[in-house]
Amino acid sequence: MHIPSPIAWTESHSVRILDQTLLPSEETYLELDSVDAVAEAIRMLRVRGAPLIGIAAAMGVVLAVGKRGSREVGKARLDEIERACQLLGSTRPTAVNLHWALDRMLRRAQRACGAGEDPRAALIAEASAIWDEDRAMCDRIGELGASLIPPGSTVCTVCNAGALATGGIGTALAPVYTLHRRGQAPHVVVPETRPLLQGSRLTAWELTQAGVDCTLIGDGMVASRLRLGDIACVIVGADRIAANGDTANKIGTYGLALAARAHGIPFYVAAPSSTLDPATPDGSRIPIEQRAASEVASWQGTRTAPVGMKVWNPAFDMTPAELITAIITDKGIFKPQELRRQDSSLRSE
Amino acid sequence: MHIPSPIAWTESHSVRILDQTLLPSEETYLELDSVDAVAEAIRMLRVRGAPLIGIAAAMGVVLAVGKRGSREVGKARLDEIERACQLLGSTRPTAVNLHWALDRMLRRAQRACGAGEDPRAALIAEASAIWDEDRAMCDRIGELGASLIPPGSTVCTVCNAGALATGGIGTALAPVYTLHRRGQAPHVVVPETRPLLQGSRLTAWELTQAGVDCTLIGDGMVASRLRLGDIACVIVGADRIAANGDTANKIGTYGLALAARAHGIPFYVAAPSSTLDPATPDGSRIPIEQRAASEVASWQGTRTAPVGMKVWNPAFDMTPAELITAIITDKGIFKPQELRRQDSSLRSE
Repeated sequence: MHIPSPIAWTESHSVRILDQTLLPSEETYLELDSVDAVAEAIRMLRVRGAPLIGIAAAMGVVLAVGKRGSREVGKARLDEIERACQLLGSTRPTAVNLHWALDRMLRRAQRACGAGEDPRAALIAEASAIWDEDRAMCDRIGELGASLIPPGSTVCTVCNAGALATGGIGTALAPVYTLHRRGQAPHVVVPETRPLLQGSRLTAWELTQAGVDCTLIGDGMVASRLRLGDIACVIVGADRIAANGDTANKIGTYGLALAARAHGIPFYVAAPSSTLDPATPDGSRIPIEQRAASEVASWQGTRTAPVGMKVWNPAFDMTPAELITAIITDKGIFKPQELRRQDSSLRSE
Repeated sequence: MHIPSPIAWTESHSVRILDQTLLPSEETYLELDSVDAVAEAIRMLRVRGAPLIGIAAAMGVVLAVGKRGSREVGKARLDEIERACQLLGSTRPTAVNLHWALDRMLRRAQRACGAGEDPRAALIAEASAIWDEDRAMCDRIGELGASLIPPGSTVCTVCNAGALATGGIGTALAPVYTLHRRGQAPHVVVPETRPLLQGSRLTAWELTQAGVDCTLIGDGMVASRLRLGDIACVIVGADRIAANGDTANKIGTYGLALAARAHGIPFYVAAPSSTLDPATPDGSRIPIEQRAASEVASWQGTRTAPVGMKVWNPAFDMTPAELITAIITDKGIFKPQELRRQDSSLRSE
């Protein structure tokens, strides 16, 4: 099974990404050698998915400090790093992993500079650690989640919470890949996920690359597809999980959760513990990113709606905790209401 | 207010249609001068919308008989007409108005031929009557439905059940236009309605042409938009209403109904009485048209999903009666459970 890797270091520790805006027709890799380039790539969704955004931003911080042997003094370098973290942190508002990763990078830089060490080496080590930990969290989510999916069943997801969204085998798709390695892959129903089609362009692509059987549907078909009666569970990713279990994820998740509830189908959220945000008490406090009207009102430059049309285009929605059967994290499987008392042990740091 | 008319007779009683597949970028009219051409136009959705399909098919039957003065004898002409009705009736399986209109045309032809009259004149009169009645039914639905919509409020629809779907001012949009004429138009939230975008291409276009304020959203945004709390009601069209009130309509309607229920928002179906099908006991018996995979997996010839991808693409879904607040017909506003005892008076014939 081949699972594509959306991110890598170059030899000189620039950031190499798979440009996800060009999939599925082109598999093009870009070498990003400045903080600005990484910020642009995140903002334009060339690199996306909450965990992967965190990793890419962390790797991007490295580009804020000169190459090894640079003669800048500690304070100036730390200012550079802080500016880089601010720029990268401003790219997208909803995913909390981004801020979590940047906080780690900044603290590590402060420690290194405080100790008179080369911050570049420390930052490379920290970004690599964030990536390694994410890969391990994906594996653990895969192991835990696989226990919830009957072998050979059918599951439904939304958007892309797979290998292309993380540093490993994904979050929502991790149990799918884990079962696939055992020869017990479920069939995966994939809503196309307008406006940017992360379902058809990304999830369908990576599942097909990996040899997992899947079926594409339109977003409006979700409720009817769930009514057919053969879906064992719904499993989605998350961009931020509030302290009470309310979950922000790709727009369409909330409607999918309502349909799952109507048909008595378990609804699982799969996310690394870096997605938990105990500082946000409930979903109403999660900032929801609004994106450009043109994403909905046109297609590859062709208008699909009258010129000047008003558009509402939130990138995410909020699924209330009461619609979530369980949250699958690397630290265990929890009911949403169990999160609050697990807070201290659930967060990685 | 300018509401575009999607159908007309030519001087020689060929069928002129607005090619709806080219909207919103091109407003192109086609002259159809054979039964085959009308069947192709219905199958390819150049003319669509349950009531309008019925009208177009009825007008198409006229093309099966030679021009006035043809010397064919009655029996041969009746065979031609029957073949035309069969061909036109096979174009799309879900909308019941199509069969209702063709049944009327065939009976009228039989009466004319039986009486030794020219069937062509009779068929032109019958098709014109079907169209006139539809226009009147739209007006009546508009009057009745307007009483359910608070002036100046916001409503949500799906697909296109407007002027472009009927011979008049639409079904779901009829109350909107009726209120608009009184200077009290509601704001209309329009889901784009993938895969063929009848929401963005058609509903947004005709509302904009008419000067009604509207906002486009993606299909996955429906539940979140309803949660905002400002939607007075949802109002949709129908392709077939079973005896128990279960309603087939454009795919996405069922999910919209579930979201309306979750937020306590009234959910109305608006349809002419020709859409009621007392012969179908419940929604499970309504045939649901499956359309080509390419509609979902590609866009204007460009693949959006991996080649060979499995696709599930039903054109319609079924909303159970218990999710429907009321059905607005030209004969009155009914709760779904009231339909059965109204059957005899509700059907036009």
